[in-house]
Amino acid sequence: MNLENFNSVVIHDVGMRDGLQMESESVDIETKIEWIEELIKSGIDIVQVGSFVHTGKIPQMADTDELFQYFNKPENKPKKTILSALVLNEKGMERGLNCNVGMFCMGVSASETHSMKNTGMSTSEAQSRIIKMAKELMSANKRVQVSVQSAFGCGFEGDIAEDKVLGIVKEYHSAGIKNISLADTAGYGNPAKVQRLYSAIRELDKDVEMACHFHNTYGMGLANCLVAIEEGVKYIETAFGGLGGCPFTKLAAGNVCTEDFVHTIQNIGFRKDIDLDRLIKIAKHASGFFVKDLPGFVYKSGGIKH
Amino acid sequence: MNLENFNSVVIHDVGMRDGLQMESESVDIETKIEWIEELIKSGIDIVQVGSFVHTGKIPQMADTDELFQYFNKPENKPKKTILSALVLNEKGMERGLNCNVGMFCMGVSASETHSMKNTGMSTSEAQSRIIKMAKELMSANKRVQVSVQSAFGCGFEGDIAEDKVLGIVKEYHSAGIKNISLADTAGYGNPAKVQRLYSAIRELDKDVEMACHFHNTYGMGLANCLVAIEEGVKYIETAFGGLGGCPFTKLAAGNVCTEDFVHTIQNIGFRKDIDLDRLIKIAKHASGFFVKDLPGFVYKSGGIKH
Repeated sequence: MNLENFNSVVIHDVGMRDGLQMESESVDIETKIEWIEELIKSGIDIVQVGSFVHTGKIPQMADTDELFQYFNKPENKPKKTILSALVLNEKGMERGLNCNVGMFCMGVSASETHSMKNTGMSTSEAQSRIIKMAKELMSANKRVQVSVQSAFGCGFEGDIAEDKVLGIVKEYHSAGIKNISLADTAGYGNPAKVQRLYSAIRELDKDVEMACHFHNTYGMGLANCLVAIEEGVKYIETAFGGLGGCPFTKLAAGNVCTEDFVHTIQNIGFRKDIDLDRLIKIAKHASGFFVKDLPGFVYKSGGIKH
Repeated sequence: MNLENFNSVVIHDVGMRDGLQMESESVDIETKIEWIEELIKSGIDIVQVGSFVHTGKIPQMADTDELFQYFNKPENKPKKTILSALVLNEKGMERGLNCNVGMFCMGVSASETHSMKNTGMSTSEAQSRIIKMAKELMSANKRVQVSVQSAFGCGFEGDIAEDKVLGIVKEYHSAGIKNISLADTAGYGNPAKVQRLYSAIRELDKDVEMACHFHNTYGMGLANCLVAIEEGVKYIETAFGGLGGCPFTKLAAGNVCTEDFVHTIQNIGFRKDIDLDRLIKIAKHASGFFVKDLPGFVYKSGGIKH
C-alpha cells in the first residue's frame, strides 16, 4: 500500500445528515448545534449540516435552514471549516443559496431502481437536472460536489455495471464538474472494485477531485477508504459514531466511522492535527442521546495509547 | 494495493481456541465437534481445535485431547484440512504429540509484561523454551508455526519496539523455523506498521512463511489483513463470528471474523472454493449458543448478492 497520498486527505463528516436521517428520533436543534460546533473544533475539514429536502419526507432534516442561519452569524461562523449540505432539487438549491451553503452536494443513483425510489426519475433524467443545477451553482462561484450513488452495487439490483458508473462520471466531467464522489449506498464496495473505478476516473482526468462515501454493511468500509486514498481519492466522507444509512435503500448500515477513520490514519502517521478525543466525546454523546451502542469501535475502546 | 498474492491465501480459523477461551460459557463437546466439522466442510484450510493448556487455567479448553481423538478416527479424519492446536509448554507438546496434532502453534510475547502474565517468564526465557520445543517437533517431522504475540503493541506497555519484534523473529529464523506468525493480541496494528514489519521479515528471508493474527479492537483488523497479504503474508488467522480475545491481555476484542474475511476476498475475486453460507451458519449457531450478537458483519447481513 502506497501511503503517499494520506497526508492530503480531506475529511467530510456527513453524520449530521446521513447519520441523523436514519434515526427514528429527531435531534433537537440545540444538540445539533453542539455536535456541529464540536466537529468544527475537532478540526474536521468539511461538516455536512443537513439536507434541503421536503420536511415531510425526512422530518429529521427540517431545521437545516435554521442551522445555517445560526452558523452564518459572524460570532458562530467557523474560521476554516466548510459547511456543506445535500440538495435534491431546484427548490433545495434555492434554499441552500439563501443559506450561503459552503459546499453543495448533489447526486444521482447509478441504479435505476434506487433512482426511481429516491427521486422518481430515471438516472439520466436525474443527471440532466443535477448537471443543470451544478452549472448554475458553479456560475455563481459556489463549491459543488456531485456524486454517483449506488456506484458499487445496489441492494435492489445487485451489481451495477462499472461502465454505467463511469458513463455517469464522464457526463459530469464533460459538464465541467471536477469534484466527483462515488457513494457506496449499499456497502457493496470491495478493495478491488474501488481500485478499478477510481483508477479509471484518474485515467479520464488526473485533475478530477475524487471523493468517496462508503457504508460498512459488510465490514469493508475502512479498507475501501484506504484503497481509495491510495488511488488518489482526496475527500473521504465519514460519519461520527458510524451512524448512517439511506432511508430508501434496502439494507442500510452505517457510514465509515469518523473517529475510527481518524484514529487509523493518525496511527499510520497522518492528520495528527485532528482532535480525536473531541470526536470520541461527540460519539459518546450521540450514543447516550439515542440510548444505544453505535457501530464505531474507538469511542468504546479509546484510542491506542503510545 | 497489489492483489497478486491474494489467491494463495491460507485461512486458519482459530475460533475454536481463541474464540471459545474468551467466553464465560463453555461449549459442550458435541457442539464443538459440530462446529469443527462445519468449518472443515466449508473448506477452511486449517482449523485450530483447541489448546493444550492446564485445564484449571482455561477450563474451556479441557476437552482438546478428546476432540483430537474424535477427529483422528478414520471415519472422522478430514481429507485435506489441517487440524492445529496451541501448545504452551512441554507437557502440552507431549499431549499434542499423543493427539497427532496436524500443526503445532506456539509463541512468545514481545511484551515483557504480557509474557510474565501469560507464562511467568521473560520473553527471552520463553523463547529459548519455545525454540527447543519447536526443534524437537520439527525433528519428529511435525508442522510447526511459531509466533510473536503483542507484535504490534501491548495493552500494558503501549508501543513495542519494532526492533524487538524483529529480534525475536531473527531468533526463530536462526533456529531454522520458517513459519512465523505475528499476533496482534491488543489490536494495535495499523496498515503502516503491518507493512513495515512484514516487509522487514521478507527482506530477512523471502522464504519465511509469514502468518498474521489480528484482533479488531479498533476496527483495523480487516485492513491489516489485506495489507499483510499484499506484503506476502500467506497464513491468515481469523475466527468465525469474530469471536475471540486473549484472557490475559488488558482490553480484549474479537479476532478478524472468518466469514467477513472470506466474503471480502471472494468479492475481490479469490478463494471462491470456500462455502461462505456454511460459515455464516456456524456464526449464527454460535450467536444463538451464546445468546448474543457476535462482532461479525456478514452473518447478520448475508453476503452481497451479485
